[in-house]
Amino acid sequence: MSHYPSSILKLIESLSKFPGIGEKTAERLAMHVLRASNKEMAQLIISVKEVKEKIKLCSSCFALSDTSICKICSDQARTASVLCVVEQPADMVAIEKSGSFYGRYHILQGVLSPMNGVGPENIRIKELIDRITDEDIKEVVLATSTNVEGEATAAYLAERLKNYNLKVSRIASGVPMGGDLKYVDQVTLKKAMDTRHAL
Amino acid sequence: MSHYPSSILKLIESLSKFPGIGEKTAERLAMHVLRASNKEMAQLIISVKEVKEKIKLCSSCFALSDTSICKICSDQARTASVLCVVEQPADMVAIEKSGSFYGRYHILQGVLSPMNGVGPENIRIKELIDRITDEDIKEVVLATSTNVEGEATAAYLAERLKNYNLKVSRIASGVPMGGDLKYVDQVTLKKAMDTRHAL
Repeated sequence: MSHYPSSILKLIESLSKFPGIGEKTAERLAMHVLRASNKEMAQLIISVKEVKEKIKLCSSCFALSDTSICKICSDQARTASVLCVVEQPADMVAIEKSGSFYGRYHILQGVLSPMNGVGPENIRIKELIDRITDEDIKEVVLATSTNVEGEATAAYLAERLKNYNLKVSRIASGVPMGGDLKYVDQVTLKKAMDTRHAL
Repeated sequence: MSHYPSSILKLIESLSKFPGIGEKTAERLAMHVLRASNKEMAQLIISVKEVKEKIKLCSSCFALSDTSICKICSDQARTASVLCVVEQPADMVAIEKSGSFYGRYHILQGVLSPMNGVGPENIRIKELIDRITDEDIKEVVLATSTNVEGEATAAYLAERLKNYNLKVSRIASGVPMGGDLKYVDQVTLKKAMDTRHAL
């Protein structure tokens, strides 16, 4: 690498810090920066600056927002009494894209992970309880991931919420739609079998 | 995607223009921009600006350089009479890393590709001929890629250079070192067999 001029090396180093970007990919991206028009790169710089300056967390649900209350929380057409609890903003966007949920969200901004020193006080659980107390919440859908930490977080929340007068549900696990049974892992198949439903 | 605030959408769009970066990856990179420290992103912005402002092509070999003559061309310790012809700056960096070449380079800045309308006049062939005439070049090593276009470019150059008083060589093709024969493609194996050498 050291055979590039120093400004290119610095760019490669900056780009290597992005998740999933190794040194080779960073080199390829740096070559694109060189080839790209000045206009395109100026646009990129403006976008990075804007994102760093304007984006805050919604003070109610902790989604990414350029206003103090996000679009979804301020949308009167959505069902205010149903909260979907997710780990991160990208999860919320994924559910929104599926068009399957019409309530509001609560973004934990993390997941319980004792190994990494993340306890209940480090994610937005207190704020969730506050919302349940303050707002008239009738159902909480736990939509954390189905990995170990996501499952543990869902189990913890289910336990914490059981004394409140509301329905607590968990998104279904099973064989992905369009999936080929023979490629589905054993844990998922077992889950799909155990939670089978009558037709 | 439209469920993100507009500044994030713009950033995702800018990032999607990079080669090999799809919408999903761009989304993940944009999330990193949000998470990263302001200092880290300021450093990235400075690097992009510096690269766009400072990096020019070496006026002799057309490598990327922050000076009008690049480090290699101005290095008196290198053998000035041997030129290695490569397609792009990254190829030069790869050869430098291998530590196998002590001459200078000539970067074509492309490869012959009639399908894409790239002819001999569109890459730095004239400049190569000029260097051969002006400088005291004794050998030209053709190190273009071994794909169809790279091979064609090497063949074209070998033909163009045969009336000059110099040695024209081509990097060897064959089974990669450390390679497992059974995974090597047929064309490479045939080439390795055809160009076998006595021990």
